[in-house]
Amino acid sequence: MRAVVMHAPRDVRVENVDKPVIVEPTDAIIRVTAACICGSDLWPYRGIEEVNGPARMGHEYIGVVDEIGADVRDVAVGDYVVGSFVASDNTCEICEAGFQSRCRDQVMLGSIGTQADYARIPLADGTLVKVPGEPTEAQARSLLAASDVLGTGWFAAVAAEAGPGKTVAVVGDGAVGLLGILAAKRLGAERIIAMSRHADRQALARAFGATDIVEERGEAGIAQIKELTGGYGAHSTIEAVGTQESMLQAIGATRPGGHVGYVGVSHGVELNGLDLFFATVSLLGGPAPVRRFLPELIDLIMTDQIDPGQVFDLTLPIEDAAEGYRAMDERRATKVLLTL
Amino acid sequence: MRAVVMHAPRDVRVENVDKPVIVEPTDAIIRVTAACICGSDLWPYRGIEEVNGPARMGHEYIGVVDEIGADVRDVAVGDYVVGSFVASDNTCEICEAGFQSRCRDQVMLGSIGTQADYARIPLADGTLVKVPGEPTEAQARSLLAASDVLGTGWFAAVAAEAGPGKTVAVVGDGAVGLLGILAAKRLGAERIIAMSRHADRQALARAFGATDIVEERGEAGIAQIKELTGGYGAHSTIEAVGTQESMLQAIGATRPGGHVGYVGVSHGVELNGLDLFFATVSLLGGPAPVRRFLPELIDLIMTDQIDPGQVFDLTLPIEDAAEGYRAMDERRATKVLLTL
Repeated sequence: MRAVVMHAPRDVRVENVDKPVIVEPTDAIIRVTAACICGSDLWPYRGIEEVNGPARMGHEYIGVVDEIGADVRDVAVGDYVVGSFVASDNTCEICEAGFQSRCRDQVMLGSIGTQADYARIPLADGTLVKVPGEPTEAQARSLLAASDVLGTGWFAAVAAEAGPGKTVAVVGDGAVGLLGILAAKRLGAERIIAMSRHADRQALARAFGATDIVEERGEAGIAQIKELTGGYGAHSTIEAVGTQESMLQAIGATRPGGHVGYVGVSHGVELNGLDLFFATVSLLGGPAPVRRFLPELIDLIMTDQIDPGQVFDLTLPIEDAAEGYRAMDERRATKVLLTL
Repeated sequence: MRAVVMHAPRDVRVENVDKPVIVEPTDAIIRVTAACICGSDLWPYRGIEEVNGPARMGHEYIGVVDEIGADVRDVAVGDYVVGSFVASDNTCEICEAGFQSRCRDQVMLGSIGTQADYARIPLADGTLVKVPGEPTEAQARSLLAASDVLGTGWFAAVAAEAGPGKTVAVVGDGAVGLLGILAAKRLGAERIIAMSRHADRQALARAFGATDIVEERGEAGIAQIKELTGGYGAHSTIEAVGTQESMLQAIGATRPGGHVGYVGVSHGVELNGLDLFFATVSLLGGPAPVRRFLPELIDLIMTDQIDPGQVFDLTLPIEDAAEGYRAMDERRATKVLLTL
């Protein structure tokens, strides 16, 4: 079968590899119908994160169950399914508390690679959620978004306690930040300030529910947010980048007593304890427990209440995966969908 | 009048200074009936924090209103009052959200100095809370605790989301940590694990509601907490020290999806973003908004439902303030009350 493999920074190839097989009785094999390239895949692509030898890529996926292990009960061959980028048992205390991304038995799908014709999904019953009916093409794109970027933006908005009466600031205008805007809107936020300096992304931000755009960054951006909020800062801030600058921008943009939901994978971030102490904001972030939100997101998508699939602005056959990585690296695309 | 002045590390004197006067029409002057020495006063005493010339000391107080400014409406001369260590207007959006310690118009009482016969309290209407009736001596001690250490421990427990069904770990066995235990107990926590290696403090921890004691620190302490919690870690952790070790111990002791309430003033703390990301815990801390809790705490104290005054294990007349600082520095006392 075909699979995307990264050999070194900027060296992405589509290769012929063995089809995966059931290893544990709780596994399922799915035929991937669409996968995508994640902003986090750019860290190794750009050489900021180490590439460990030839590495299989991809952790987002939708597909059809092709085979199940002996202990799988809740999904069946032929089911159309969505899962998160972390396999979870969905029964341990951490999962029960809604933090499936940190399940006691978690398996990161990135270590398996879903940019491929087939993928082995561990802990299938806990991980996969069956889609009711047959999705349209637009719905399928949105379901793929739910697998990571939508679920991550949603978690960020929930962690930031976006809701009625709240002003939400969003740092980062990639797919996750944009879908954090969509989430904040659905959660009832009164005002949503997108921090973005790219016209196309500003347009999508507004389409998803942003009421204001701030182009400034750093201290100037923080000053703008304060000016828009009576000097106080945002109640809720979504951080969807993962750099030192973006974290400090997010914390600085938030009023005391407010909440920062941070989901950009941290790269080189160091937070000074005393600054954090006097910021007096709640910080919650990490790998998003997408599984918590999947049933609700699937319902919103299959009833056409949200259209997060709009974040995909480039669709390529998997053979052209290398071009997909280049396009995202060069910011010619926000989010690339790979068809199989 | 008498006032405590720190001239340099370990150089604390009681001096004769001018009685304060009303400066703003929103000020009140109170006759301080008791003050105390705070763990945070030890940072400059030990030379870890700079002493800015001869500095007036103290930010905790109970007393009787002696004089009010022209705009003061809610307290009157003769009222017995408690206030927090931060003066706040209690009307701005930050105060309304319960974060009075970060009030838009905040004044730190530490800059005024309450280890003195009289103290000027800015924003008297927003800051001072009238005590109903005349407190007994024991109640007066507890009210003094409410002014900072109890309010701070309470905030830490609330920030850590201590409550029914929760296992709470407490890092730090000073007055704030001990009163964090009392708060967690009152908030309904099922299990409270005190991290302490001092027999006298362990005894008080148990008296306040601790169900378990862990003497180990650092990684060994974290391992103990995990062993006591089915491998998961605590749901809620109170951090009441402020060092790098104590912060990492608190974060490490908390399960993913759990909450850390940190109130130890940070000294040299640097948090790695990626470690924090994968810890996936909520962090909330800072100077405690004691004012939020004062009405409830005063009620609990005046109806003898709680006795936080037990943390004072040394009572001295203000003339002996220097000995009080020494006793706390040398850990001969947990918390020193100064009578006036």
